[in-house]
Amino acid sequence: MAAQLESVERCLEKHLPAPELQEVKRILYGKEPRKLDLASAVVKAASQHEFELQGYAFEAAAEQLRQPRKVRVGLIQNRIPLPTETAVTEQVAALHKRIAEMVEVAAMCGVNIVCFQEAWTMPFAFCTREKLPWTEFAESAEDGPTTRFCQELARKHNMVVVSPILERDEPHGETLWNTAVIISNSGAVLGKSRKTHIPRVGDFNESTYYMEGNTGHRVFQTAFGRIAVNICYGRHHPLNWLLYSLNGAEIIFNPSATTGELSECMWPVEARNAAIANHCFTCAINRVGTEYFKNEFTSGDGQKAHHEFGYFYGSSYVAAPDGSRTPGLSRLQDGLLVAELDLNLCRQVSDKWNFKMTGRYEMYAEELAKAVQQDFRPNIIRE
Amino acid sequence: MAAQLESVERCLEKHLPAPELQEVKRILYGKEPRKLDLASAVVKAASQHEFELQGYAFEAAAEQLRQPRKVRVGLIQNRIPLPTETAVTEQVAALHKRIAEMVEVAAMCGVNIVCFQEAWTMPFAFCTREKLPWTEFAESAEDGPTTRFCQELARKHNMVVVSPILERDEPHGETLWNTAVIISNSGAVLGKSRKTHIPRVGDFNESTYYMEGNTGHRVFQTAFGRIAVNICYGRHHPLNWLLYSLNGAEIIFNPSATTGELSECMWPVEARNAAIANHCFTCAINRVGTEYFKNEFTSGDGQKAHHEFGYFYGSSYVAAPDGSRTPGLSRLQDGLLVAELDLNLCRQVSDKWNFKMTGRYEMYAEELAKAVQQDFRPNIIRE
Repeated sequence: MAAQLESVERCLEKHLPAPELQEVKRILYGKEPRKLDLASAVVKAASQHEFELQGYAFEAAAEQLRQPRKVRVGLIQNRIPLPTETAVTEQVAALHKRIAEMVEVAAMCGVNIVCFQEAWTMPFAFCTREKLPWTEFAESAEDGPTTRFCQELARKHNMVVVSPILERDEPHGETLWNTAVIISNSGAVLGKSRKTHIPRVGDFNESTYYMEGNTGHRVFQTAFGRIAVNICYGRHHPLNWLLYSLNGAEIIFNPSATTGELSECMWPVEARNAAIANHCFTCAINRVGTEYFKNEFTSGDGQKAHHEFGYFYGSSYVAAPDGSRTPGLSRLQDGLLVAELDLNLCRQVSDKWNFKMTGRYEMYAEELAKAVQQDFRPNIIRE
Repeated sequence: MAAQLESVERCLEKHLPAPELQEVKRILYGKEPRKLDLASAVVKAASQHEFELQGYAFEAAAEQLRQPRKVRVGLIQNRIPLPTETAVTEQVAALHKRIAEMVEVAAMCGVNIVCFQEAWTMPFAFCTREKLPWTEFAESAEDGPTTRFCQELARKHNMVVVSPILERDEPHGETLWNTAVIISNSGAVLGKSRKTHIPRVGDFNESTYYMEGNTGHRVFQTAFGRIAVNICYGRHHPLNWLLYSLNGAEIIFNPSATTGELSECMWPVEARNAAIANHCFTCAINRVGTEYFKNEFTSGDGQKAHHEFGYFYGSSYVAAPDGSRTPGLSRLQDGLLVAELDLNLCRQVSDKWNFKMTGRYEMYAEELAKAVQQDFRPNIIRE
């Protein structure tokens, strides 16, 4: 790491003269979302709990037949509060406590749907390739302690909770999955959505722990809109976003855990491209900080064994179907990003740009079906 | 337009302090490509002909079994040199002359494959919805005057030429297409590739003139690597990029014509996302300037009839599979961007990130086939 930059956006705001700043922001980030006017009590609460709070609103044009459909989403990014050597139950309890504090503030901001980072109840220990104690963080999606905790949050705050955990699938041979549990604002478990694509890159040895998800591209009809969850590495796969969208998702959450040198220059591109290509909102969430592991491990990169995961750079953001986006949360600290979305914008942008109408999906279904055949011969023209 | 910004990258370089600049560039643009050391005669020639010249090299790791496969691509963006009222043949001749000058400099830079902007022999007159004289710019892809002109360039400079034109398809009822002609460095016409997706947005009334292309996702094996052409609006369609890639493309050109308020914030996102998602190089080319049309036209946006197309913002760039990219060419003037690509980087990044290996295309072929059925029911979970 060179300088410890808080965020690109803040750096630009600090150094660029006003007219240039306006143009640069227009080109880099699109139409600027309106800043939410957050009550001072809320700002104070965030500050007391030592996390950043940002709020923005994406607006849509007025329509004659539909009322605005405004929903507030909350994206939470955080460090692990306790060292990774601490007892599993203590680590989980400390994370529950931290998230409860942050969700409290989200509720004060009127958040309707909150989403936490990937595998939020644990360190991202998959770099180690050790099984114990990390697999002990796995829980039942339906009635594990974390799901029960989230159900309480949901009922208390009348909030939909998206809770990405390491899942222990008892009825199916106690296998593990990387799973997001979707809890209705009623407190009921609405369902679960498993990570579609599993990485084998650098310290992301996740294929050692769990397989590609088998829950397809479910979309969840909540009281506040239709949502889907594309977990982490699935953001690199445009088809994954597309199928959530074709199944009706208006907001796609992308809870992630990803580190500096590996992916930081891709981070602002992929979820945002998905919002554009699919006429929907996308919410990209990354954890923060460096996680230390007692036993040394190697990273498959020719370097010496070491104890630290690379730097999780936060930078969570929301992207809108018109190509605009919020600034990112800090690269350095815990944060809550509140975004008010008028979901009417999705269809308005779709009617303007027509990517689904012009998508030619029948042709692609055929071409893709051919491309996966063993005897597929690429269509290469030679002189 | 607020300030007339030359380019975002140049603005950042001017105003950010060195350490912040380095971090901002790393996060926004990835690993910095090496600047090409261009001979002073070349720089002088570009300056004499009043166009910007930039050169960069993307490098790959050394391998034991493969030599580096370095290829130089040239991206040319330009204004139309003559008013749109000028006689068709004069406009075409002026464009041929301008491009010949620029290709001359590209040849001095050692460019192996050059690509021009979309419909490069004409103004982008599709905003008018008038047929004459614009349809008179259409030519045979196989033996029209522009193809013959490009064949000469190709032979003279030992260069592959990608020439996107308005095609008149004589054998098929004289229909029009938006087509890229690919000319081998031998001078032979290697083939053609038609625009897959056609826009109906704002002033881009192209569906008035031609239909969705029927040439599929061909890839052209040239002496310098396997290339494909994804014309303009096809860059919004991730499946389009994917199929070119599955057919073996290492470099995908995206000759475009697109304007400020409509798409500028999407421009840096889409072709770059495609380079990342498909482990290939992408080359995004946009024209420059404002085009004036004698007869007024409306834009379907509630505004009064007017004579000018929106501002074509140039900003052509090359994106690499590792998420890095070149700075953009100027937003304001003609330019030639030379990029040296080591094509070995494509497989190296693929082996690292594995998006094709983890792509689950069989699943998507099935899901997509279902999604296009008349009786498709989205997979929506309700409480």
